Parts: sequence; C-alpha cells; structure tokens
Amino acid sequence: MYVKNAWYVAAWEHEIEDGKPYAMSILNEPIVLYRAGESRRIVALEDRCVHRLAPLSLGRCEGEKLRCMYHGLLFDADGKCVEIPGQDLIPAKARVRSYPVAPRAGWVWVWMGDPARADEALIPDALHIAEPDWIFGTGYMDYDAEARLIIDNLLDLSHIAFLHADSFGSPPDYAEQRPVQTALDRGFRLDRWITDVKGPTLNPTDDLIDQWVTYDFFVPGVLLMHSANFARGTAKACDFKKPDYTDALAGSLAYTSHAVTPMTTKTARYFYTWAPHKNHGTVESRDAAMQFQLMALTEDKWMIEGQQKIIDLEPDRPLMPISHDLTVTMYDRLVARMVKDDDDPTKRAA
Amino acid sequence: MYVKNAWYVAAWEHEIEDGKPYAMSILNEPIVLYRAGESRRIVALEDRCVHRLAPLSLGRCEGEKLRCMYHGLLFDADGKCVEIPGQDLIPAKARVRSYPVAPRAGWVWVWMGDPARADEALIPDALHIAEPDWIFGTGYMDYDAEARLIIDNLLDLSHIAFLHADSFGSPPDYAEQRPVQTALDRGFRLDRWITDVKGPTLNPTDDLIDQWVTYDFFVPGVLLMHSANFARGTAKACDFKKPDYTDALAGSLAYTSHAVTPMTTKTARYFYTWAPHKNHGTVESRDAAMQFQLMALTEDKWMIEGQQKIIDLEPDRPLMPISHDLTVTMYDRLVARMVKDDDDPTKRAA
Amino acid sequence: MYVKNAWYVAAWEHEIEDGKPYAMSILNEPIVLYRAGESRRIVALEDRCVHRLAPLSLGRCEGEKLRCMYHGLLFDADGKCVEIPGQDLIPAKARVRSYPVAPRAGWVWVWMGDPARADEALIPDALHIAEPDWIFGTGYMDYDAEARLIIDNLLDLSHIAFLHADSFGSPPDYAEQRPVQTALDRGFRLDRWITDVKGPTLNPTDDLIDQWVTYDFFVPGVLLMHSANFARGTAKACDFKKPDYTDALAGSLAYTSHAVTPMTTKTARYFYTWAPHKNHGTVESRDAAMQFQLMALTEDKWMIEGQQKIIDLEPDRPLMPISHDLTVTMYDRLVARMVKDDDDPTKRAA
Repeated sequence: MYVKNAWYVAAWEHEIEDGKPYAMSILNEPIVLYRAGESRRIVALEDRCVHRLAPLSLGRCEGEKLRCMYHGLLFDADGKCVEIPGQDLIPAKARVRSYPVAPRAGWVWVWMGDPARADEALIPDALHIAEPDWIFGTGYMDYDAEARLIIDNLLDLSHIAFLHADSFGSPPDYAEQRPVQTALDRGFRLDRWITDVKGPTLNPTDDLIDQWVTYDFFVPGVLLMHSANFARGTAKACDFKKPDYTDALAGSLAYTSHAVTPMTTKTARYFYTWAPHKNHGTVESRDAAMQFQLMALTEDKWMIEGQQKIIDLEPDRPLMPISHDLTVTMYDRLVARMVKDDDDPTKRAA
Repeated sequence: MYVKNAWYVAAWEHEIEDGKPYAMSILNEPIVLYRAGESRRIVALEDRCVHRLAPLSLGRCEGEKLRCMYHGLLFDADGKCVEIPGQDLIPAKARVRSYPVAPRAGWVWVWMGDPARADEALIPDALHIAEPDWIFGTGYMDYDAEARLIIDNLLDLSHIAFLHADSFGSPPDYAEQRPVQTALDRGFRLDRWITDVKGPTLNPTDDLIDQWVTYDFFVPGVLLMHSANFARGTAKACDFKKPDYTDALAGSLAYTSHAVTPMTTKTARYFYTWAPHKNHGTVESRDAAMQFQLMALTEDKWMIEGQQKIIDLEPDRPLMPISHDLTVTMYDRLVARMVKDDDDPTKRAA
Repeated sequence: MYVKNAWYVAAWEHEIEDGKPYAMSILNEPIVLYRAGESRRIVALEDRCVHRLAPLSLGRCEGEKLRCMYHGLLFDADGKCVEIPGQDLIPAKARVRSYPVAPRAGWVWVWMGDPARADEALIPDALHIAEPDWIFGTGYMDYDAEARLIIDNLLDLSHIAFLHADSFGSPPDYAEQRPVQTALDRGFRLDRWITDVKGPTLNPTDDLIDQWVTYDFFVPGVLLMHSANFARGTAKACDFKKPDYTDALAGSLAYTSHAVTPMTTKTARYFYTWAPHKNHGTVESRDAAMQFQLMALTEDKWMIEGQQKIIDLEPDRPLMPISHDLTVTMYDRLVARMVKDDDDPTKRAA
C-alpha cells in the first residue's frame, strides 16, 4: 500500500544530463526524465511509447521534445504525440502520461497521483545539497526488497543499537529511550535525548555527554534528521526540548536526509545524504562520515533483503508488533488514511 | 499466437555434428537434433524421454538411433522406443514425438504441426549459404523477448531511419516512403525505391543515387532481401519496378536472410546472413558488412528487450497502430488465419 | 510430497561453529542452527523473528540464547522470546518454532514433524565419519531441482551403467541384473551380486571377479552403501547372500553414505561421503575416490537439472514407469503411506 498523491524522489537532479533521457520506475510505472530545451527544466513522461510500448528512455531529446527512436514518434513535454513518421493524422489518444515534476533540495520529485492535486508545498522541506552552511555528500543504493521494509527500518531507529552495533555503535540503551512524538502534516517529528553517554562512534568523546537526535518523517518515505552532542546536563537544562545548535560540541552537528522510492513491487531505490555543519566538519570529515554511513546502510540492506527472502517463503505470515513499533503503526495508519483519500472520487479534479 | 503448421529454423546445418545431439526448443517444445548413422541425415525428436522426462540431448548417438543416457532407453529415428534395459516388453506408448526435418539453404527446418501436412515446398526459397555467386556470412543471436516483437521489427523497416540512424544511417525520409506490397503464398513481398539520395552507410556515394530494396517475408518469421544502388533516374526508367541487377552500381548488390524462431514464451533465436554478390564484394567486405549488421542487430536487441521489460510491467496495455504498421497488420491477419486453419479438424490427417 | 515426521540432514556437524548462526531451509521452512553456550549442543530454531520476520541467522549467539540483531529480541533455545528491548511484557505468542535436533554420524539431523513424535531411534544408522575403521571424505552439493528427482536417481542404480559410463564405468549389463529387495522399517535394503565381470573403474581388475553392492535406503532420502570385489565364484559359494567382508579383494571394500534434503520446492542439498575401509585404502586413495565420486555426482547434477528444466516446460507430463522403477514405486508408496500418517489426527500429541 503506497500513497499515489505524493511526491516521490525519482533521481538526483545532477544525474539528469542534457540530451540524455533517464529511465526510472516508480510504483511499477516506467518513467523517463529529461531536460527540455534551453530552459533545461526537467520533464517526466511515461516511459512507454503509445505505438508499440517501446521505452522512450532509449529515445532522443529534440529541444523541448522527446522522440521514440524505435519508429520515430515525437512527444512534447506534456506527453502529447506531435509527429508520427509516414502519417499526417495524429489521433487524440496518442499521448503518454506526463507527471508533475519539481526539483527541490537537489532531488527531482515526481507526483504520482492526480496532477490536479499536485501541490509543491507538499514537498518535504529538505535542506538543499548546495546549501552553503552544510557540507553535503550524496549517494543512492538499490534494494531487492519492498520499499515498505526500508521505511519500517527508518521509522524505528531502535534497530541502531543492534543492527549497527558494529558501525554506529550506539549505546545499548538507545533502544530503551523513547522519543517525543509530534504529529506533522503528512508525517511526524521524533525528538530524542540520550543522556549521560559517551559520544557515538562518529563523534566519540572521552566524557559523558547528552546526545540530541531529531527527525521528521514524511509520506511517502522521507526522513530529515539533525543530530549533535551537547555538554552533559543540557537535556535537563532545556527541559528535554530542542537545544540551541550553537551550543553543540565541536564536530558534532550534522544533518542527514533519506528518501525511499518504490520502483517495482519488490525493488526500491534509497537516496541519502550526510552533511556536517560547516563549523563542525570539513570535506574530509564528510567523506569519512559518508564511508561510515555506507557501512551502516549495507548492514541495513543485508538485513532487509534477508527479511524479504524469509517473507517470500511464506508471504502471509503475520507480524508481531512491539512497543517500538509505535511510529511504524502511526505511519501505517497515516498511509492507510491517505490511500483511502487517493481513492475518494469527490477529491478528483473535474 | 504462432502458426504450428509451419517450417521453423531450428539450427544452422553445420552446427549439427556427427555423434553430438543438439538441444533446441521451438514453441516451448524441447527438441533434439542429431545426425543418423551413415546417411548423416538430420533427425528431430522430442527432447524428453518417455520414462522420467530426462533430456535426450544429453544422450548418445548409436547409428540411426539415440539412447537416453539416464536409464538407457533407446529410440529409433521415428521416436519409437526400441530398447528398455532390464525389460523385454516395450509398451506401444513408449515413443517420443518425431518431427519432419528438412535441411535447406544451410538451415535445418523443423515442421511443428501435423506431420501429414509437412510439405517441403512450403519452405521459403532462401539462397543457400554455399551458393557460389554470393559470399555468405552467417550468425545467430538469442533474445530475452517474445519472437513476435522481433518479427514486428522486421516487418516494419521504417524503424531503420531511427533505431539504426547510427549504424545503417538511412536517410531520414526512409520512413516517409511507402513500399509496394504484393501478396505471396504464406507471406508478402515489399518492393521499395528510395530515389535521389546518397548511398547508405554500407555503400556510401558522393553522388545522388536511387536505392532499391526488395524483400519477401514469410510465416513463421523469415525475411529474404536483396538490395542495391543504381544510377539516379533508374527507378523512374524502370517504372519503379524491379531493376536489372546487372546494372547495379559497383559494390552495392547484396543479399540478406533472417529467420526468427520462438524458443519459449519469452525467448527467441534470431538467425541471420549477409552476402555481397561475388561481383560486388570480397570476403573482407563481407566481414566488414557482418560487423556492421551485428551493430544494427544489437541496436534492435537493446530496443526489443527494453520493450519486453516495459510490456512485462503491464502486459495488457493496448498498442496504437500507425500507418507503417500496415505490413504488421497484414501479417497478423495472415497468422490469425493460419492459426485458425491449424485448429481446423477437417484439415487433419486421418 | 515429502514426509514431515522424519529426520532430515540439515548440515555437517563440523560446519556449525561456535558463535556463528548457520542458515538452512528444509521443506521450505527457514531454519537457523547454532551451538548453545558451554555445552555446545546444537539448537535448531525457526529462522524468522516473530516481530518483523527478519532472519535470526543474521543474529548473535548469547550463551544458550540467540538475539535477533534487527531490533534485539532475544530467544532461548526453546524458541521462547525472553527479551524485547523497550518493552517489559512479553506476549505468550512471542516464540519461534524449535526443532528437535540430533547430531549423528557427523550430520546434524532435524525433525520436521510433530516434536512429540521425534524419536532418535528413527535416525538411519549411518557410520560416523570419525569411525576409526574407515577413512572418510565428506562433501555436499546444491541442486536447482526438486529433491524427489535426486531421490529417484539414488533409488534406481541401473542409471550407473549409462549416466556414469564415463566415470564409474560399470559393465553394461549392470542394468540387466536385479537386486534382492528386503523391506526395512521406513525403507528397504537392496543386495546385488554382479558376477563374472572385471572390477569397476574404481577397483579395476585384470581377472573376472564377483562384485557385491548392498545398500539401505531410508525415508526421507538417505542411502547407506557397502561395496567390495570378491574372487570369482564367491557369489555362488555364499548362495548370493551377504559375503564375509574379510574375504574382500584387496583395496575394494568401501562405504558411502548420501542424504538428500529438500530445501525449497525446487532446490535441494545433497550430502555425501566416501570411505575405503582402513585395510583397503589410504588417505590418498580416499581422495582419489572422492574426486571420482565428484565427477559422477556432477554427471547426476547435469542430468537432473536438465530433467527439471524439461519438466518445467510442461509440468503435468506423465511419466512411464519401467521395470527398474520397482524400487522407486516401492519408495513412493512408502512415502505416500507416511504422508498420510503425518496427517492422521489420532497420531498427534495431546
């Protein structure tokens, strides 16, 4: 169950080169992205020619338009076929679906639902990877697993204490401390203080400190997180609320964003960043942290693809929710409500 | 939908070596080819032992016969089991299907329908690869795609102007010029003049010329083509009919044959040749042209396997025929008629 | 159709290392094996966490217990969940299946049926690979084929004369001589004399000899065999019954055991040994024989995986039993009876 009326990350914006159609699929729909003409704005069309279902992503960019290089049909940026070689009349039905697109934060976002409801204000407010105050690293990873399993992983960070014991090396009681939850529009916020611990592997400390982690999680699978270490006692001093980031211990303030996109029923693409604040890191420390994060993501991938194989042996096996699943359950309910809304005929454009 | 009562190319004749059973599958049926005894005639049997369904192609040739090397059952060239180790009585039902076979033009043709209707006169009249007037090159390529998609490709050469823009480099108006169609028994002929153009990449010219391409296309997927360049004005001079090949410009007269065989539902084998006429080429020019053709076939394979993947995402998606699909439509109707005839009980042998 | 109430070989005992969970699947059920605590006894649990179905085999051994390293649930050796991080109450249903396990003969046997009926006396009485009188070699091989096809192969050794003509090189009339069959509990015994032949490739002789082969075959796919050469006339002298092994010709007395375990519907693991008697061989002759056996097993694998592919083209194709299938038929009936017994409600534990 995935929400249709949502913005999905389709690619890194810098991956879409002039004159090179880019193939992706989202929710089992084949999509081609390309830069249109002089403006270089990114267009997203259905990656399936109306004629014989050939991939337009094997086609040729011609200014604002995209030509299928099988038999030469030409499509404009709205998906309308405007030329059929050897034929004067172009039937009205000769059009491929065109998707609302918006570049934001370095990502290309594609709206998979009713175009009339595509509202750019609904795009999660991620920091742009060109933001000068942060030193960004970016990457992506493909999974042979349902996107939902990766989203579950991100929703319940209690797994860090176990799955990432060798990489992030969080203190064992990480899983014991509950975050404060706040409902957001199309998502929620989780704030968490971990007090009186040594700094995590990424920012180790000799002394005990208070660690702050806050993240927003949005449908359809976007996580935006800030984390930092603070002097012991800070959590209490600010009443376990959000601290002043200028008080963060040297080298500890960092931002990371993640977006999970279902490609087909059992494949997904996972986009991620890592960025120390410019006052807390360098290109070198960013690269070291990216390596580190890659190690943790590989631990996730290994576990989640293993989970998928076990599920495939007996797909109807029920789960057994535990206390930490509260966020997963909250998220599932939110998605269920939104999927119902997707199907609501009164919400459809005329 | 494929015709059963038809000759399919199963292999290159020179691939069937003495004493080495050769495995192939056609229309999802496993087939073993082998050379029988002294005569060396090629036999085609069902590649599935009656006993425990082991492949006979892992068996041993014994004169005219083929022995299953799992438990030793021996089959004669008619598919009759003539020996069961450890057992005297051989049940009448102990036989595998035997297919009519005919070597022609260097290919091994197998009849997949009612043996009583197998008529060698129905084999398309391809030039033999040992024909002394032509300098033949041969090859084959396997596809992860339905044979029908490859046949569609061959039926509508308007794709050359687009898909092969980088290899064959046909003039852009190729797709604009319609061929003359003539119905044939179990197929049709397409004659096409392209006038006042420069020679194609394979036979480039400085001056404008007239280019002649003619091909016969036969069920179940066989294309036989001649092409040549002529002095500008030849098309008009011969009233856009077939020219006299002795007038062909130096180095331009060539022949090519193609046969597409459905192996399983989603795999196919594509057999092909290329041959300059002996007065128009050499072994070297033939090799260069074969390289060239391989490049074009790889462009086809890339597009068609891409098309198959897109189709598999949503198999029931309808096509939208265009003007150039006339030959495809004609062919589809012919096939539909022949498939109906396949199923006609009055046509069956007693 | 496979028997549930049976001991299946899950692994070589020496493969289960301290602190390293070992993943296997039997009859489509994911299973994790590990050594528990100080005792090092092997435990077999369902390899699927109750929480989100993650594989416990990616978990961590903690004494007698096994921790899921996704979200940290801890299971005891009975499969009972004894710790859920962040949660005090542990629901009664929080348990994974625990399988009866018994190490025997170097193999780890797992009981796949009703635990109340798990009786170690039902484990086939194979020679232990540490048995000092025999010089054992061990191995295993994975198949992309149903276990049943491999079992059929082992049940009818008449295939040796054909499939292994190049490796074991049995005399061609091997398939002509019927073995003496004796019913056993959950299996049967086949004794066979092959008289007046030269020794097989493994123990070749210049003179004619009598060859003795006897094996016991047990549900669910375990074969235990002794073989030896004897002076010509021995068969007759002992009335075609079991000979005295001390009379075996030099270098010929050997033992081999095989166990076939269905992993999933179309994959299987085949465990095997080869052991010359200490008075008939050396580590070197054992190694040579193991190489030899590997060659024969590869012939089997090639044929059986080919058979599986042919079957998959048309799965409902009937077989045609032959005389040598008597043992296969006997075995199939035995299995059918035992499967029926598996489902008998009156046999179930209260």
